[in-house]
Amino acid sequence: VVSKLPQTGTTIFTVMSALASELGAINLSQGFPDYDCSPELIELVNKAMKEGHNQYAPMAGVMALRERIAEKTEKIYGAVYNPETEITITAGGTQAIFTAISAVIHPNDEVIIFEPAFDCYAPAIKLMGGVVKSLALEPPNYRIAWDMVKRLINQKTKMIILNSPHNPTATILHKEDIDELSALVKNQDILILSDEVYEHLIYDGETHHSMARYPDLQQRSFIVASFGKPFHATGWKVGYCMAPAYLMNEFRKIHQFLVFAVNTPIQYAIAEHLKNEENYLGLAEFFREKRDHFRKGLEQSRFKLLPCSGSYFQSVSYRAITDEKDADFSIRVAKEFGVASIPVSAFYSKGIDHHVLRFCFAKRQETLDKAVDRLIRV
Amino acid sequence: VVSKLPQTGTTIFTVMSALASELGAINLSQGFPDYDCSPELIELVNKAMKEGHNQYAPMAGVMALRERIAEKTEKIYGAVYNPETEITITAGGTQAIFTAISAVIHPNDEVIIFEPAFDCYAPAIKLMGGVVKSLALEPPNYRIAWDMVKRLINQKTKMIILNSPHNPTATILHKEDIDELSALVKNQDILILSDEVYEHLIYDGETHHSMARYPDLQQRSFIVASFGKPFHATGWKVGYCMAPAYLMNEFRKIHQFLVFAVNTPIQYAIAEHLKNEENYLGLAEFFREKRDHFRKGLEQSRFKLLPCSGSYFQSVSYRAITDEKDADFSIRVAKEFGVASIPVSAFYSKGIDHHVLRFCFAKRQETLDKAVDRLIRV
Ligand SMILES: CSCCC(=O)C(=O)O
Ligand SMILES: CSCCC(=O)C(=O)O
Repeated sequence: VVSKLPQTGTTIFTVMSALASELGAINLSQGFPDYDCSPELIELVNKAMKEGHNQYAPMAGVMALRERIAEKTEKIYGAVYNPETEITITAGGTQAIFTAISAVIHPNDEVIIFEPAFDCYAPAIKLMGGVVKSLALEPPNYRIAWDMVKRLINQKTKMIILNSPHNPTATILHKEDIDELSALVKNQDILILSDEVYEHLIYDGETHHSMARYPDLQQRSFIVASFGKPFHATGWKVGYCMAPAYLMNEFRKIHQFLVFAVNTPIQYAIAEHLKNEENYLGLAEFFREKRDHFRKGLEQSRFKLLPCSGSYFQSVSYRAITDEKDADFSIRVAKEFGVASIPVSAFYSKGIDHHVLRFCFAKRQETLDKAVDRLIRV
Repeated sequence: VVSKLPQTGTTIFTVMSALASELGAINLSQGFPDYDCSPELIELVNKAMKEGHNQYAPMAGVMALRERIAEKTEKIYGAVYNPETEITITAGGTQAIFTAISAVIHPNDEVIIFEPAFDCYAPAIKLMGGVVKSLALEPPNYRIAWDMVKRLINQKTKMIILNSPHNPTATILHKEDIDELSALVKNQDILILSDEVYEHLIYDGETHHSMARYPDLQQRSFIVASFGKPFHATGWKVGYCMAPAYLMNEFRKIHQFLVFAVNTPIQYAIAEHLKNEENYLGLAEFFREKRDHFRKGLEQSRFKLLPCSGSYFQSVSYRAITDEKDADFSIRVAKEFGVASIPVSAFYSKGIDHHVLRFCFAKRQETLDKAVDRLIRV
């Protein structure tokens, strides 16, 4: 058969997690915790199953969960989404991203993405016959040069994909970015796909500039979020998409035939769990401690820490150590020092390699300590 | 925005289930049971969560589950699938179907489907720029005229989609169909997508002619199955796809960016549950009783029963009652008599209406009795 994605191999997350488990290395590559989600949350799923919530959820999701999401969104960002028509529960953030792209990208439509980029954006665009226009950002700050974005925009530009807090770079959008973006899309038919999976993981008093905060942007945006990452249950695969009804209508046309509906008992459980806002508002502090602990440890190493304003990833430059390619170096660090990471070049399409590795710090303190002990020896 | 699926409305399942719940009608429309899955199965999910299986499953699925599926497939159908490279766990059968189509259908490729057809096939084909070539089948037997299929085949034909036991018609493929199909695709580059979600629900001593039984067909087939339907837990959303490695490789390229992985604890639970083969081999008898009970009841009505050889759906012709359109009649039966059904014309693209309604009999005996009492009055 002729491949639909001839250039696509296995996602780097699968490759590095497999390597880590083969080597018995500490796995700081793929983003998931090595501690468990809360027993209360597990009990809520169990309760939902025992109460008989085991058949198809409504196509758009369990209404109680959509309502909790609408409440939380209004409270935090001031945006009103109608749970009936503007919120859909998905099988994780990835499915939401794929579905949003599928719903609006026609052949030859151009989509602007910023690299390093989470690796599911480009394949979904290409699968729909769209054209990826990528702008490569540079460490340490990975700032978006909006005048460069402006030059990429033309009649064919259909969408801009944003991701803040950003995976893999841990940077965030600032108010200046929002202003530039607003000016850029004003009077243009350009949609936004905003991947906000790490919305609650933001540090140092910074604000999460959700598209939901800005009516001019909100009305043209698909906003994607997830429960797996914040609730330490990445294996449960529940996320959601919010968009104005005219966009959500198209999203659901695809969603209903792509997956139809999402795991029912978990939706009920998360709807319950969201009632206590401490369950998500407390996350930033929880992960800040881990970040600070990990950074402090790595300060003793020859790695140079890049800034980390959000997400649960810490990137480091290893220029001072070697000029090996990051793909090779990442494997060598796993093999020789027993710590698996993600080489950030995997998130650039054009072989750009800034000699940066990404570590996930959503780990127990002892795991981080052990990893630091090993990384100091590099 | 310009719709990707301009002709597509909300799936009939959502429409009819919503109507049923609005009216308080007995819901025999969308296919799901009104009794619960087994408490053992729920406890297995609970156990998996408590044991800490709450983070990402491997992209292709939990290995123990893939191994159980390989064993079961070899035992029943004699086909050997390598769990490492040829089986992938999906978020339900629908995701498997969507992904298989996405993986191989290029713009202008033609796909042959038989109508009435489950409503997710055509939109997925169209979304990939493919062309749907549909052959309309007729009640009561909905037999495939293979000489007509032959006429549809040309250089552009990329795939044939089969579904046995068939939803909505409850018919099955026979050995003659397999022989005709084999002859037809011999020496041709035509793939098969075989939707076998109801593989275990087959009655009256009939054989399920899985593509897995026939090496010449197996080697060109994506076979899709599900656990939601057989294990009475349609809301858990776990299914799978099997295909030879050269096809599965393409399937996974999409799968990894469409959903990445599937709910972890449920995969562990089902792997355990599959160890007892009575859990799936006993299903045919369980549903046969329901079928017979429901059919016996409906014999007192003015509806004419169509044959039911598999699946958990019973179709009926109402020509003797009225010549109303089935879409209208289905709504009227729900409103005036309190029983929701699916109008089978919803599964034909060209407005073909044979005056047939589909009822789901995966219901408690008392529900079926109550429905029969009402349907007798029609
Ligand atoms: C979808 S698996 C990858 C998890 C993740 O978000 C990451 O590691 O960046
Ligand atoms: C995907 S919801 C529909 C369930 C089903 O398979 C049916 O009712 O035919």
